[in-house]
Amino acid sequence: MSKKVVTLGEIMLRLTTPDFKRFVQTDSFEVTYGGGEANVAAALCNYGLIGTFVSKVPNNPIGQSAINHLRRYGVDTQFVARGGDRLGIYFLETGASVRASQVVYDRAGSSISEMDTSEFDFDQIFEGAEWFHTTGVTPALSDKAAAFVEAALMAAKAKGITTSIDLNYRTKLWSKEKASEVLSHLCQYVDVCIGADPILGYIANETHHTKGELNLDGFKDMFHFMQQKCGFKFIASSLRESHSASDNSWSALVYDGNKFYHTKSTIYESLIG
Amino acid sequence: MSKKVVTLGEIMLRLTTPDFKRFVQTDSFEVTYGGGEANVAAALCNYGLIGTFVSKVPNNPIGQSAINHLRRYGVDTQFVARGGDRLGIYFLETGASVRASQVVYDRAGSSISEMDTSEFDFDQIFEGAEWFHTTGVTPALSDKAAAFVEAALMAAKAKGITTSIDLNYRTKLWSKEKASEVLSHLCQYVDVCIGADPILGYIANETHHTKGELNLDGFKDMFHFMQQKCGFKFIASSLRESHSASDNSWSALVYDGNKFYHTKSTIYESLIG
Amino acid sequence: MSKKVVTLGEIMLRLTTPDFKRFVQTDSFEVTYGGGEANVAAALCNYGLIGTFVSKVPNNPIGQSAINHLRRYGVDTQFVARGGDRLGIYFLETGASVRASQVVYDRAGSSISEMDTSEFDFDQIFEGAEWFHTTGVTPALSDKAAAFVEAALMAAKAKGITTSIDLNYRTKLWSKEKASEVLSHLCQYVDVCIGADPILGYIANETHHTKGELNLDGFKDMFHFMQQKCGFKFIASSLRESHSASDNSWSALVYDGNKFYHTKSTIYESLIG
Amino acid sequence: MSKKVVTLGEIMLRLTTPDFKRFVQTDSFEVTYGGGEANVAAALCNYGLIGTFVSKVPNNPIGQSAINHLRRYGVDTQFVARGGDRLGIYFLETGASVRASQVVYDRAGSSISEMDTSEFDFDQIFEGAEWFHTTGVTPALSDKAAAFVEAALMAAKAKGITTSIDLNYRTKLWSKEKASEVLSHLCQYVDVCIGADPILGYIANETHHTKGELNLDGFKDMFHFMQQKCGFKFIASSLRESHSASDNSWSALVYDGNKFYHTKSTIYESLIG
Amino acid sequence: MSKKVVTLGEIMLRLTTPDFKRFVQTDSFEVTYGGGEANVAAALCNYGLIGTFVSKVPNNPIGQSAINHLRRYGVDTQFVARGGDRLGIYFLETGASVRASQVVYDRAGSSISEMDTSEFDFDQIFEGAEWFHTTGVTPALSDKAAAFVEAALMAAKAKGITTSIDLNYRTKLWSKEKASEVLSHLCQYVDVCIGADPILGYIANETHHTKGELNLDGFKDMFHFMQQKCGFKFIASSLRESHSASDNSWSALVYDGNKFYHTKSTIYESLIG
Amino acid sequence: MSKKVVTLGEIMLRLTTPDFKRFVQTDSFEVTYGGGEANVAAALCNYGLIGTFVSKVPNNPIGQSAINHLRRYGVDTQFVARGGDRLGIYFLETGASVRASQVVYDRAGSSISEMDTSEFDFDQIFEGAEWFHTTGVTPALSDKAAAFVEAALMAAKAKGITTSIDLNYRTKLWSKEKASEVLSHLCQYVDVCIGADPILGYIANETHHTKGELNLDGFKDMFHFMQQKCGFKFIASSLRESHSASDNSWSALVYDGNKFYHTKSTIYESLIG
Repeated sequence: MSKKVVTLGEIMLRLTTPDFKRFVQTDSFEVTYGGGEANVAAALCNYGLIGTFVSKVPNNPIGQSAINHLRRYGVDTQFVARGGDRLGIYFLETGASVRASQVVYDRAGSSISEMDTSEFDFDQIFEGAEWFHTTGVTPALSDKAAAFVEAALMAAKAKGITTSIDLNYRTKLWSKEKASEVLSHLCQYVDVCIGADPILGYIANETHHTKGELNLDGFKDMFHFMQQKCGFKFIASSLRESHSASDNSWSALVYDGNKFYHTKSTIYESLIG
Repeated sequence: MSKKVVTLGEIMLRLTTPDFKRFVQTDSFEVTYGGGEANVAAALCNYGLIGTFVSKVPNNPIGQSAINHLRRYGVDTQFVARGGDRLGIYFLETGASVRASQVVYDRAGSSISEMDTSEFDFDQIFEGAEWFHTTGVTPALSDKAAAFVEAALMAAKAKGITTSIDLNYRTKLWSKEKASEVLSHLCQYVDVCIGADPILGYIANETHHTKGELNLDGFKDMFHFMQQKCGFKFIASSLRESHSASDNSWSALVYDGNKFYHTKSTIYESLIG
Repeated sequence: MSKKVVTLGEIMLRLTTPDFKRFVQTDSFEVTYGGGEANVAAALCNYGLIGTFVSKVPNNPIGQSAINHLRRYGVDTQFVARGGDRLGIYFLETGASVRASQVVYDRAGSSISEMDTSEFDFDQIFEGAEWFHTTGVTPALSDKAAAFVEAALMAAKAKGITTSIDLNYRTKLWSKEKASEVLSHLCQYVDVCIGADPILGYIANETHHTKGELNLDGFKDMFHFMQQKCGFKFIASSLRESHSASDNSWSALVYDGNKFYHTKSTIYESLIG
Repeated sequence: MSKKVVTLGEIMLRLTTPDFKRFVQTDSFEVTYGGGEANVAAALCNYGLIGTFVSKVPNNPIGQSAINHLRRYGVDTQFVARGGDRLGIYFLETGASVRASQVVYDRAGSSISEMDTSEFDFDQIFEGAEWFHTTGVTPALSDKAAAFVEAALMAAKAKGITTSIDLNYRTKLWSKEKASEVLSHLCQYVDVCIGADPILGYIANETHHTKGELNLDGFKDMFHFMQQKCGFKFIASSLRESHSASDNSWSALVYDGNKFYHTKSTIYESLIG
Repeated sequence: MSKKVVTLGEIMLRLTTPDFKRFVQTDSFEVTYGGGEANVAAALCNYGLIGTFVSKVPNNPIGQSAINHLRRYGVDTQFVARGGDRLGIYFLETGASVRASQVVYDRAGSSISEMDTSEFDFDQIFEGAEWFHTTGVTPALSDKAAAFVEAALMAAKAKGITTSIDLNYRTKLWSKEKASEVLSHLCQYVDVCIGADPILGYIANETHHTKGELNLDGFKDMFHFMQQKCGFKFIASSLRESHSASDNSWSALVYDGNKFYHTKSTIYESLIG
Repeated sequence: MSKKVVTLGEIMLRLTTPDFKRFVQTDSFEVTYGGGEANVAAALCNYGLIGTFVSKVPNNPIGQSAINHLRRYGVDTQFVARGGDRLGIYFLETGASVRASQVVYDRAGSSISEMDTSEFDFDQIFEGAEWFHTTGVTPALSDKAAAFVEAALMAAKAKGITTSIDLNYRTKLWSKEKASEVLSHLCQYVDVCIGADPILGYIANETHHTKGELNLDGFKDMFHFMQQKCGFKFIASSLRESHSASDNSWSALVYDGNKFYHTKSTIYESLIG
């Protein structure tokens, strides 16, 4: 029997200009539906696990299309509630050469931001699950959404399910102060924290500053602070070292509260600068 | 010197599925920007007039794309205000054979619905104009928008400019009662009324009912009622007579308060059923 | 709880030339995956039922794409076996004006035609099912496939599940003699027969022949023969009456062994001649 | 009030093969309309200036499309004359990997090359303008076109407007001798010269030759010669230093007749080799 | 051994707007290469004959693409000369509903219009040929082209090859007077004349005029006149009878100088109105 | 008179996902037809030679499309036999960034693998030819195909035509043992061997092993072995030296049985990683 992982968050409609066109030039958009939590569910299905995605979409063909998009990759969508006003949208203009990519968000008033915790039955949702994953984006959407994430984390913990959060602090969605307060509160229910972000209160030690190189000591210092503050079992993050506009090294750092594990770097050339 | 016509209303982003695809099937949307009032301005530019469009769009690349779209056809966009949250969107799935087209609106909270009349300088806008045109859709968006339309109509009338309105009652946007009240009030400033719609209070005379044929007497009766109630100089409407799913006859009826003019019908076959 | 319907058959890759192009002109193919039985499962999911599709596809990305295509519409694909050599393909050139559509089949050696009945656990497959549907295409693929269909029909009957078959005799796949023998044998397990086809042995009564009109008496005579021979509970068929190259009337005829039910005709204009 | 810049030159239809296809492979062309002077006008509109483009296009839908293309970006096209035979065309096959891009010109007999200076009212065109920009391509098209450029430069100078020219010597359009003579003559009306090109008569000093590196002294020597000969207020050029097929450094050199200004180099990786 | 047919004429680049877009809306053109004479050669290859096409195209990749396009359908292109300035172009905007299609020609100065008869070796070209076909469009391009067509017709006749011409009088290319004179002269070498066109001097008999119906007597009268004047062995034409914007009947009329043959009419619905 | 080169092998339908899409994501495939031997014929036509391609394709529109595809580039296809069941297919998913390309073959039972040598008249095929080229892929398809290649090589040798083979050992098509045996046998008829492959029996000398650099001595050793064993007049191969995922150096090594010729390396950056 495959392991079941539950993820919870927003799924949005992404509209991308084709062929590196600018917004003012395009006569069409490429359509996809996604979000951090939905993408994790789809990726896990690809690896043979059962990925269950929990969210809310409007009861119209755009909401249905988001659900069908996930179903295509085998995601279990039976716990996606239907209702509310709209699916959040973001527009993406892919950069090229010296022109950067740009994103326009149109996500206010989305169905997930106005859901009610009572619409979800956590006993059914978590039945047979071994892991629950969410991100710091959902609690930023609205107070209702933050309360919903907390209720889900509490229900998972009560059932002995491993919980994880990808911090992913979004400056456009809420203030640093509110994000710090809400995320610190939620992290008490979290076993595995993903993301190296000072949003939980870390203040960088001056001596760790180095320019143009990967500041590994700084990350270790931050992970130690985070673990001390919130009691995570594991903290993990990908680390990027930029060599040029299109060449980056990627590695991963994991901390189990005791020891640090740092993978070897690999250079990947991005397709566009 | 070309005649100048000012139109005022909302411009929206239209996202259409290509090749008769359903929403749940499509991987792309065709992009266009339009609305009744913007389309009138563009059509008049095609005929060699000066078409000035008044509206409000968000100060982001999607708003800019709407403006550039109109500029392409020569529309004067200098009085389109920038600001607010978002451009209204509607999704269109083109029907085929026995499947009807369907539209999903996502227009709440658009910039035009939250504009402020003080953002527009009617003296500049109407300078040199001979005609002002708007529709019954804009006042349906919000109370602010209705007040804005009224202010524009009053300013145009005060300058001796001919005014016209396309009634276009939208049941999804407001109740029949509110629409009737607001539109009847606005029509006191209107010279030319377009659209044969009972929303101004007309109650059909039973004896005019005929099935499967164009009820010309009914339309004449309605036009007479509308002219009596609001004092329009002209009332005009296109009339459609359906022969089958894809064959329609089109004609136009005009009333000058004195006499009726009915054009000859022409049959057009629609491209899709 | 939604009703569960199981369908069984082949799913193929369909490659269609775009924009009415001919095979020798096209530089691309539109891709879809389908088959009569798979399409029924997807359509039932659209209506809110549980559609379970049973088949076999190759254990490669093309087979996976066929599965994902069905998942998109909510079809339960857990009982699609993986293995064998290839997915059947058919190429479609859409006709236009006076040029007819043409189809090129490349389906020999497909995974479903070489499956083994032991790969499927009918107890699991039919658990909770109320209806089992298949067609006369699958038994035409190979002797193995015919044995598989018989085993499935027998298992369904043994569990008291309603069974249906769409006769769909394909002259390119097998001879009239073999089709008649195999289909007549399978029909002993069938409750509902779909399709007005003389393949079960019916010989038309000369007096029923009429030219250019729907020969309703002929169909009734055939249905009566079919019911007498195989003991179907219901026989049903859509009936087409051609008025011109692009105008057809469609109606449906149903026979319950006692009485005939004939729906009203509706004219649909096809998109292309 | 925004500054007004007038540019004058040819606008052509560019037909590009998509997806790196070769001319003999493509079944479609991507369409755009442009030219050095038109592009400058569009770019200045992007920066908030008023860009007025002066040209001549045929009085047919292709000419209209060129105008609408510029309007989209806000360019003032009221002084584009209509008439003549055709819009110049060039075909572009985008190279890939070891295959170079190639261009096929089909520009003979274009409307701009056969215009008449009397079609343009320079008093209206330059009203309120602060800058006039043109290039060395337009005078190469025909004697009429060269006379037109001279008339425009003289009119601009007479009104105290700053004038600029991008030399851009095209060997396919005229001989070195004729180009040198005509451009040298036109440059007497030019304040700002763009382009480091020996076409004005500069003969390189042997001692400045260096291989594989940016020969900055050579450029300075040429700029000094050009300033002495024609009395430019400013001379400017972009300088490219090639590191490999796809890596180039770009910098700019400006000379005010007194001092040289050289910007820092930036390396850009081109999208294709 | 297959029969060999030689055709001679211009091949042009056709640029079509996709998806019923207008010229001012399109961002791409569909590309094809053709012309009446080239299309006949390709169609004959489809039927298994040897189709040899004689023409001249520029010695650049656009000319090569025209050749490769014909080769794709098996046309023998060894006698297409290379040289001259350009390939003729025409732009096509496909109409839709009440909007008519429109064509913009840009064909002046094409390679074929400036060829020299000495570039073609008729002994080689006609070796083994049984039929030579051309049209009345080529002699309209230039005096050189008319002389070339005459030389080809004379060479074919001298070798006993059957000759045919499709009159196809184009008002945009030459005057009625010149067309009448040149075509009448060329027709002395023609065995089979295609097209019912008064350009050879026919003046309609008033009594044959009928409105809204196929005037078969009028066509017979014209064919008789044409046969008398030029001595054709056969005259043939397709005849169209319009029932509505999108329904046409097509038939063919043939005259062998003795008897008329009129095929049965068939109604075809055009794809667009 | 151009030199004539005959090539013999399989031509397949290649279906490629567009825009770096994965198989499970794509709604379309780009279509092309090719194979090593067909591509050589097309490339030689580009250089002005006569390229004659010998193969067998099914007698259906897909086979015809393969032939027309080659004709487009001027390939002589008169000796492509028609018949058999199907054209071999392969599906290509183009990789991007860290995701590798993948290929799915569906080539079993192709027409060429089931052809009969008697279908081909080598006297006609080789008339006037100077070179015959084939590859090690065709004999791997079936015993019939291997016998066919041998017959063709023998016929060419008997006529004094230079013969070449590109070894191209495919592990998916046959075992190392069978490939070694069959290819060694065929090589007795071969003048020019292309490819540095140990399949002819070469066992690498340990001392030649070097890591991360081009092992030129190893290749020379292998070429010497191959020449000794089979008596080739020339052995040639391209050599790739990988610097990173997207940077490769390419050079060529040729051995005439006496001396080695090694071209200078050139670095090419691949478009995708």
